[in-house]
Amino acid sequence: MHDEKILKILRNNADTHTSSDELCKVTGVSRTAVWKHIEDLRREGYDIEASPHLGYKLVAIPDSLIPGEILWKLRTKIIGRSVLSYKKIDSTNDSAYALAEKGIAEGTVVIAEEQTKGKGRHGRKWESPPKSGIYMSCVMRPEMAPNEIAKITLLAAVAVAKAIRRFTGLEAMIKWPNDIIINGRKVCGILTEMKAEQDSIDFIILGIGVNVNTPAASLPKGASSLKEELGRPKKSDGISRVGFVKYMLESIEEEYLRLRTKGFTPIMEDWRSMSLLPGSKIKVLLPNRTIEGEAHDIDSDGSLIVRLDSGVLEKVSSGDVVMLR
Amino acid sequence: MHDEKILKILRNNADTHTSSDELCKVTGVSRTAVWKHIEDLRREGYDIEASPHLGYKLVAIPDSLIPGEILWKLRTKIIGRSVLSYKKIDSTNDSAYALAEKGIAEGTVVIAEEQTKGKGRHGRKWESPPKSGIYMSCVMRPEMAPNEIAKITLLAAVAVAKAIRRFTGLEAMIKWPNDIIINGRKVCGILTEMKAEQDSIDFIILGIGVNVNTPAASLPKGASSLKEELGRPKKSDGISRVGFVKYMLESIEEEYLRLRTKGFTPIMEDWRSMSLLPGSKIKVLLPNRTIEGEAHDIDSDGSLIVRLDSGVLEKVSSGDVVMLR
Repeated sequence: MHDEKILKILRNNADTHTSSDELCKVTGVSRTAVWKHIEDLRREGYDIEASPHLGYKLVAIPDSLIPGEILWKLRTKIIGRSVLSYKKIDSTNDSAYALAEKGIAEGTVVIAEEQTKGKGRHGRKWESPPKSGIYMSCVMRPEMAPNEIAKITLLAAVAVAKAIRRFTGLEAMIKWPNDIIINGRKVCGILTEMKAEQDSIDFIILGIGVNVNTPAASLPKGASSLKEELGRPKKSDGISRVGFVKYMLESIEEEYLRLRTKGFTPIMEDWRSMSLLPGSKIKVLLPNRTIEGEAHDIDSDGSLIVRLDSGVLEKVSSGDVVMLR
Repeated sequence: MHDEKILKILRNNADTHTSSDELCKVTGVSRTAVWKHIEDLRREGYDIEASPHLGYKLVAIPDSLIPGEILWKLRTKIIGRSVLSYKKIDSTNDSAYALAEKGIAEGTVVIAEEQTKGKGRHGRKWESPPKSGIYMSCVMRPEMAPNEIAKITLLAAVAVAKAIRRFTGLEAMIKWPNDIIINGRKVCGILTEMKAEQDSIDFIILGIGVNVNTPAASLPKGASSLKEELGRPKKSDGISRVGFVKYMLESIEEEYLRLRTKGFTPIMEDWRSMSLLPGSKIKVLLPNRTIEGEAHDIDSDGSLIVRLDSGVLEKVSSGDVVMLR
């Protein structure tokens, strides 16, 4: 509480020093107590200069995925209004799911610096090395039937691709069903899980993993990170993860509110305009067989429509796509 | 273990006495130990006659929803092969859901004599008074997309309606979406819940509540029980719940295997043939409005198709139906 008050004052006076007396006055605690709070903030990664005569000055803020940083000037009303942050967790999706079962509010975000059991689609692993990526899960409670879940998955892909484009200028594309690709390499995966009755969704956990500053060597083959794609080899040249998380949360909220007011069509149009596949020769690995053809379009239920070599259109609801050539 | 051995011998010799010596020989324990096991069985509700000279004889078995009784001569391979039985539980669906999240096998059944927080659709309450109904939840793991969940719900309604018809001779009918009705009164409700990714179901919890011997006074308005509908007012005239549970488990398995081998069409045809509504004037209470018309059919995704007074067909995926006249 006092930490936050002190931090706020230092933030608002970032170009000058704030005297100990001033901080004592505002917080109502002693000089020694103020000093202890400053030490707390330093442990969290804030670089605070102390001068015996002038007082304290905030020199640098940490790029840590902590609520204090994520919530600072975040412009959302629902998504990310409550943030639970972990240095290390098994899986943000599992944690958010368990919280959602207990009734936690829509928009709550679980975020972690590292996952020990990061989850991808269909029980696969999502590599989640520490301090370089963003691993987060958001609780959504849309009033929908379970067969509408694709709306949320497609919406998330659109929101993340837009956030990447705005924040980095990189041309993020969407690869069906829900990967984000830059220059042919995967930088982000999305995993939606839900609890539902036959005719109504109880909640959806929207899991998003983004490789932000992750070095190529820590990633599986075919994967990359925003930093790699920006061509910034130096370790110090990292992208602000805190800054990018805010862009993502704001972008998700924007699309979510648009879904409520304008329906699904505009989101689907955006999805199509950023889709990597249309017109490409592809191979689709289905649970029991493989098909080949040309990627044609997606359906409003999230299925991929493939034009087989015979000319027949086939709808695919689940599978992995390999681009040929 | 010894209890089960002794019980099996007594069951197989139900028309005669079995001597203490014989039971000692088979179990390998002392006469005093045999006596203690007999006492255990009596506490579970088995009526066992003891004669100093002739030995023991099984006179009556309890109508308790215990695994020993349910599994006895149960002819299924999947459904109910493992039974977890409770005298009292908050909700069998919640319990089965938690077990399924930990990976418990398909077909596992959680069953209880009483529920303190019995659940109906959309967070409603399901009255679950003790020792008179069957409250059970079965873990299903079909390889399906989430938009196919209706197949399991409709399948369950067909299976339960058939089990009631076979066991009691009563003309059980299905009222959309998944109530079982006899003579206009509800005797059974079905609640399916699932955990799923966008394109694949992780598991479904198939919850079934049947009022078997429940007196009308313990039930909400419009509800009834099998015993009431059979016109058996005497308390001693109860229906065997254990017997009926076996019919239900066998019927669910039969339909489930039929779905696998023959697809959904035959189940849907059976559903239609037992459907209460077709041709009836109905009012459907939707989340935000009410529509009136004639019940026309159901769709393969479980939706109700209503012919409005204007002649237009409207598809309804979630709602409550009131029959008019």
